Amino acid sequence: MLIREIETFLEEDWGWTEGLIESLSGVRTKAVILVNEKGVVAGVEEAKAIFEYLGVDVRVLKEDGSDVAKGDVVIELEGDSAGILKGERVALNILGRMSGIATTTKKCVDMLASSKIKVSCTRKTTPGFRKFEKKAVRIGGGYPHRFSLSDAVLIKDNHLKLMNIEDAVNIAKRVAGPMMKVEVEVESCEECLRAVNAGADVIMFDNMNIEEIRRCIDMLKQKGLRGKVLLEASGNLTPENIRQYAELDLDFVSVGYIIHSSGFLDFSLEIIR
Amino acid sequence: MLIREIETFLEEDWGWTEGLIESLSGVRTKAVILVNEKGVVAGVEEAKAIFEYLGVDVRVLKEDGSDVAKGDVVIELEGDSAGILKGERVALNILGRMSGIATTTKKCVDMLASSKIKVSCTRKTTPGFRKFEKKAVRIGGGYPHRFSLSDAVLIKDNHLKLMNIEDAVNIAKRVAGPMMKVEVEVESCEECLRAVNAGADVIMFDNMNIEEIRRCIDMLKQKGLRGKVLLEASGNLTPENIRQYAELDLDFVSVGYIIHSSGFLDFSLEIIR
Amino acid sequence: MLIREIETFLEEDWGWTEGLIESLSGVRTKAVILVNEKGVVAGVEEAKAIFEYLGVDVRVLKEDGSDVAKGDVVIELEGDSAGILKGERVALNILGRMSGIATTTKKCVDMLASSKIKVSCTRKTTPGFRKFEKKAVRIGGGYPHRFSLSDAVLIKDNHLKLMNIEDAVNIAKRVAGPMMKVEVEVESCEECLRAVNAGADVIMFDNMNIEEIRRCIDMLKQKGLRGKVLLEASGNLTPENIRQYAELDLDFVSVGYIIHSSGFLDFSLEIIR
Amino acid sequence: MLIREIETFLEEDWGWTEGLIESLSGVRTKAVILVNEKGVVAGVEEAKAIFEYLGVDVRVLKEDGSDVAKGDVVIELEGDSAGILKGERVALNILGRMSGIATTTKKCVDMLASSKIKVSCTRKTTPGFRKFEKKAVRIGGGYPHRFSLSDAVLIKDNHLKLMNIEDAVNIAKRVAGPMMKVEVEVESCEECLRAVNAGADVIMFDNMNIEEIRRCIDMLKQKGLRGKVLLEASGNLTPENIRQYAELDLDFVSVGYIIHSSGFLDFSLEIIR
Amino acid sequence: MLIREIETFLEEDWGWTEGLIESLSGVRTKAVILVNEKGVVAGVEEAKAIFEYLGVDVRVLKEDGSDVAKGDVVIELEGDSAGILKGERVALNILGRMSGIATTTKKCVDMLASSKIKVSCTRKTTPGFRKFEKKAVRIGGGYPHRFSLSDAVLIKDNHLKLMNIEDAVNIAKRVAGPMMKVEVEVESCEECLRAVNAGADVIMFDNMNIEEIRRCIDMLKQKGLRGKVLLEASGNLTPENIRQYAELDLDFVSVGYIIHSSGFLDFSLEIIR
Amino acid sequence: MLIREIETFLEEDWGWTEGLIESLSGVRTKAVILVNEKGVVAGVEEAKAIFEYLGVDVRVLKEDGSDVAKGDVVIELEGDSAGILKGERVALNILGRMSGIATTTKKCVDMLASSKIKVSCTRKTTPGFRKFEKKAVRIGGGYPHRFSLSDAVLIKDNHLKLMNIEDAVNIAKRVAGPMMKVEVEVESCEECLRAVNAGADVIMFDNMNIEEIRRCIDMLKQKGLRGKVLLEASGNLTPENIRQYAELDLDFVSVGYIIHSSGFLDFSLEIIR
Repeated sequence: MLIREIETFLEEDWGWTEGLIESLSGVRTKAVILVNEKGVVAGVEEAKAIFEYLGVDVRVLKEDGSDVAKGDVVIELEGDSAGILKGERVALNILGRMSGIATTTKKCVDMLASSKIKVSCTRKTTPGFRKFEKKAVRIGGGYPHRFSLSDAVLIKDNHLKLMNIEDAVNIAKRVAGPMMKVEVEVESCEECLRAVNAGADVIMFDNMNIEEIRRCIDMLKQKGLRGKVLLEASGNLTPENIRQYAELDLDFVSVGYIIHSSGFLDFSLEIIR
Repeated sequence: MLIREIETFLEEDWGWTEGLIESLSGVRTKAVILVNEKGVVAGVEEAKAIFEYLGVDVRVLKEDGSDVAKGDVVIELEGDSAGILKGERVALNILGRMSGIATTTKKCVDMLASSKIKVSCTRKTTPGFRKFEKKAVRIGGGYPHRFSLSDAVLIKDNHLKLMNIEDAVNIAKRVAGPMMKVEVEVESCEECLRAVNAGADVIMFDNMNIEEIRRCIDMLKQKGLRGKVLLEASGNLTPENIRQYAELDLDFVSVGYIIHSSGFLDFSLEIIR
Repeated sequence: MLIREIETFLEEDWGWTEGLIESLSGVRTKAVILVNEKGVVAGVEEAKAIFEYLGVDVRVLKEDGSDVAKGDVVIELEGDSAGILKGERVALNILGRMSGIATTTKKCVDMLASSKIKVSCTRKTTPGFRKFEKKAVRIGGGYPHRFSLSDAVLIKDNHLKLMNIEDAVNIAKRVAGPMMKVEVEVESCEECLRAVNAGADVIMFDNMNIEEIRRCIDMLKQKGLRGKVLLEASGNLTPENIRQYAELDLDFVSVGYIIHSSGFLDFSLEIIR
Repeated sequence: MLIREIETFLEEDWGWTEGLIESLSGVRTKAVILVNEKGVVAGVEEAKAIFEYLGVDVRVLKEDGSDVAKGDVVIELEGDSAGILKGERVALNILGRMSGIATTTKKCVDMLASSKIKVSCTRKTTPGFRKFEKKAVRIGGGYPHRFSLSDAVLIKDNHLKLMNIEDAVNIAKRVAGPMMKVEVEVESCEECLRAVNAGADVIMFDNMNIEEIRRCIDMLKQKGLRGKVLLEASGNLTPENIRQYAELDLDFVSVGYIIHSSGFLDFSLEIIR
Repeated sequence: MLIREIETFLEEDWGWTEGLIESLSGVRTKAVILVNEKGVVAGVEEAKAIFEYLGVDVRVLKEDGSDVAKGDVVIELEGDSAGILKGERVALNILGRMSGIATTTKKCVDMLASSKIKVSCTRKTTPGFRKFEKKAVRIGGGYPHRFSLSDAVLIKDNHLKLMNIEDAVNIAKRVAGPMMKVEVEVESCEECLRAVNAGADVIMFDNMNIEEIRRCIDMLKQKGLRGKVLLEASGNLTPENIRQYAELDLDFVSVGYIIHSSGFLDFSLEIIR
Repeated sequence: MLIREIETFLEEDWGWTEGLIESLSGVRTKAVILVNEKGVVAGVEEAKAIFEYLGVDVRVLKEDGSDVAKGDVVIELEGDSAGILKGERVALNILGRMSGIATTTKKCVDMLASSKIKVSCTRKTTPGFRKFEKKAVRIGGGYPHRFSLSDAVLIKDNHLKLMNIEDAVNIAKRVAGPMMKVEVEVESCEECLRAVNAGADVIMFDNMNIEEIRRCIDMLKQKGLRGKVLLEASGNLTPENIRQYAELDLDFVSVGYIIHSSGFLDFSLEIIR
């Protein structure tokens, strides 16, 4: 975590003065950060960096990725009371947001544990905070998919309203070059076949039901094409409905839910003097 | 919305090149932004600013704060295909996040509609995006409470481990001066009385149950002190449990949930040529 | 003081190279910062942060808020000559500007010492440096008033050209919510009464003379409304004319002068080897 | 004025929401910016850029550098009321600060009008706002002297505690190269002579009295060295004492006072509907 | 090109004042940008954005990627003389640097035109300007390879000093997930085989001579592994020695030279009134 | 080197995650930075700052400005493997770019060693990296000339299409004031004489051949004007053709080539465990 990121977040939370807190400085204080519900913890590295920036000593008891239970102490702090209080809210917000995402991700990963299917997120993230949200997915056992438009080429339905699949894949491969993959969103077996034949590296079954996806995969197998592409399913997956995908021969699923619908995991900071 | 905010969000989403999208430029295109579920829309002003920055014409059909139903068109766009596709993800993410918050806020507000109790949020927000989250609360009919440590002085339990209520209020009033309010978190009627006597402007009943709160308010009334302070209840309120507060003589409640546990409202952008 | 603030100020003062100073590095040097005239010192915390960023050891002899006399040593420095010389101008400028403001503030505060009237500043500040100027007012014993448009709602004469007092207060209270105050600028007893009746928390007597203000206050007392509002006087107050307000039953005065017309207090840095 | 500068200043003044002002938008409004005291106006270009950024039409009646009298209209505005009110405080602060400096500068320039002596400022400026303060000096008829450490090499008393004049000038000339000047602060005729002989381009008489300076200049003339250097006097010059320098054969004086001790010139914005 | 990038570059070139140029404003002026040597032009889009930011009308005669000859007019400008002169140096520097790179890239691409081997660059770029340098490579017909450490996983010799090939590929594939490729730098046929068997997507022959590379490729073919990986050669390729690679069955070569050793293509701006 | 500069460069090189490198952390590692060809080293101070920011211990064996031979170890590193690998590319890029420039500069300086003519660079630099490129010139024994438009006034051919020499020098001297120099680009002896008579401090012979320049200098000498100005030659100088200028009575030459046509000096980082 860069100093400029820490400062941006602290500045947002402090405003132009730290008000009352300044009046509380000068007392050597001990405090703990507790988690108030079961989950997977993420954001510990960030919380640590924030308190260290503020001159507070930090002892991490639960590393990023640890399973935690209600009441677990995640971090112990010792330092000037003002330092602890000035970092409190930002550190808890990062822990809460990142751990919430890691916890949901882990739930999805666990639902697919019987298969080899990986769980990834999407670009549906909070503007300005994507880096931390994608990292939380990774901590929860998932994969980040594309970070930005520059990481891989994904041909989506809106693009296919502007050109056909074959042209799109051709252009995309020219844009992508040898180091990036080209993926195509398809909505039918016919589109799937055209995309594979055009040279796509990855196929995304977009909002197709389990049966349709199975039919497509079977078709690819019959034509000996299954080994030429990676297969992804996408579209309104949730921890509740994800298990049914486990039986399909997919490489991964993408689940916007794990970022866009995760609440904060509940943490609190307690001064114990 | 400042240009620098727009650029920060676009830069995060684009990476160093806009990849395939550049190859799709040059086509005059029409598109719509649809909402895929019922809710309260927020972030329209921001979405408009983003597309205008990209040279796309924008027609707003649903202003911030409008109730929307599944399938409603919120915004119509017309311009170069590249401009539309380059703004798509960021605009949808802002709309999704802000509308999700506005929708939850509205639910809570409606639950208390029979009373005069206002709904406010807390500082439990996504780092770097607080400004937009607080604005969404306002659009949903709620209040922002403190934006940062500099807006008002809030004496919390952790502060009261470092000094007693009377000293804390005294110092806080010196810090606050005539233009800012001083609020004290209390956990009992005794603390409540001490805080009011010390001169607090606002009392927050922190994680106290309905009965305890009622007792405190009755006590204040008996002593003729109710009119001297504003009263707030806080602590794990949700759209599910909030209605029970309606019968209390409170001025407002703060509900961290409306920001920290709201998912995105579901929007999509469709090119209609 | 955040590292980014320190760097912004140093970068402005250094340009692209530190020129001659680099050639002077490598000599272990002692230096003192002296004040060359009587006043109240402010900016010491900032000066300390700057020299520490540059690797120079700092010993503070006069904390922020101290009364100083000509010739007093405020700070002792020890470190590489280049570090001391590279921080010199920025540190002195911050000390000069902030101490100048603290000194003028203190003068005004002293003039009103016989009363309970507080002294506050306004938003008439140097663009980009407000945070430090408002802090200097506080160090001098004054109050910051609103930092920005977001801190409190102040209904000014220009707003009242666009709507009437009652509507303005109504809207303002909706904007302000429970945690912010609403203040109205008035120019007559009639406006004052209307604003109080509409529910204003604070009344500002704007450019009214002593007699008029006294009449308004008497009126409020007769009507039993004095206790319902805070009262502020504003408009061309200076250290020269401020004493006459002491006899009024005001809560505070705002004095743009303490920021917009304070010169720098004179400091210098002397190398003593 | 770059967009990022405008945004930085507006952001400081607005905070996270523009509060009441948003509620006042939608009314086509005319307004004027008036000056309330005699002076030289500066900052008009900046005020214009700010209002144009906010979509307000601007008509400049008094260009930068104009002499103005109390009551003069400097700028006429027309546009949405919110745009005008959102730019008001920042525009007035820039006009006030810059015009205050231009006015004081002009006073000093006028005092030396009988001579060929130029007036310059120093690096004693408000951190972060130097660019605008130096520009104001220029608008008032003065010169900016060094902007930063990188613009010219100035050998000061503190440097001369670390090495002797001859070595310092030698090193300085190596640092400066052919495109920058080397100046030496001297406190006696002997130091002045040594500096000139060492090759200084400019001599600064630092805190020397009129008689001493005159003696130095006479000495230089006798030795035929006057034509080889530019001569500057510095040290506590003010509009009150500057006239006495007019009789000396100096090239310029530097007057920190014009920046560090100028108050704001008084402007106001009036909505005239 | 974002406004903040334009402003950063202009600010660097202007310093705190635009000096003489301001005195030259007010004259409606025509100018042309000429190229003074044969090459491939790049940076036109950026130059256009800069002048448009400055209010100058721009007519592009040679789009990015065009072959140009000495004396060709690339851009015609019309607007205020100050706008043209203020953008001149930055626009020419971007054109010069980007076109220099595009020209060298094109040379390398032409050398391999008889083969299907693509030309890519590396991360050996000028800090802060990589985005534009990589774009210039693309304009010249090359490929950007990894932009940053986040785009693909490249296992280099230094990594292989810390762990063996098999472990490294295993970890890398876990880091990379389904959307990113894993590449391994190898220095022998044995390493190549191990990397392919471990599951690498791309093999980089690092500083191996033509004969060794050929042997490796033959080995892969014999084992039926050629179709499973992409093959890249790297290490001190230049426009002079690159042609010899054309005969190899490679997918691409990476040529740090095209960025780190390209000079500026020579452009000039001429006012023609 | 400021922390913000380090962070900007690292952020560009890392993207949003440090990928594989994170998996390599935790191993105490030694490494060296080697130079792979003869030259003058520059950028060592910057490389040191980068690794220290990353918590790596740095021992500098070759200071900035040292002559180095192929195989020389410039810097020794010791610390966590992740810290070393995360700083590697940025540090090498800075060393490569700056040392390439310093090496070319030194070549030019050596070519003129028999004369007193100094070598300077121009504003033909990589946007955003000028500060480091100009510093490299200084390390190589050259001079930076103007950093930006604000450092000195240079009247160029394009300006002289808008006004005549005499007017331009007059205005320029007013802009420049006593602390800045005024230089005029001339293309003939007649222009040279006019510029000197108008009061220019420096004359630049722009793209004039050796014979013409000699004639101009002779003319100035005959008229007794040589001592009144500094003389500079400019226009397509290279290490190959620069020696011929040694015989002229010039003060300096400016050589855009040393920045715009220098390749990177070749460095590598090797882990030695």
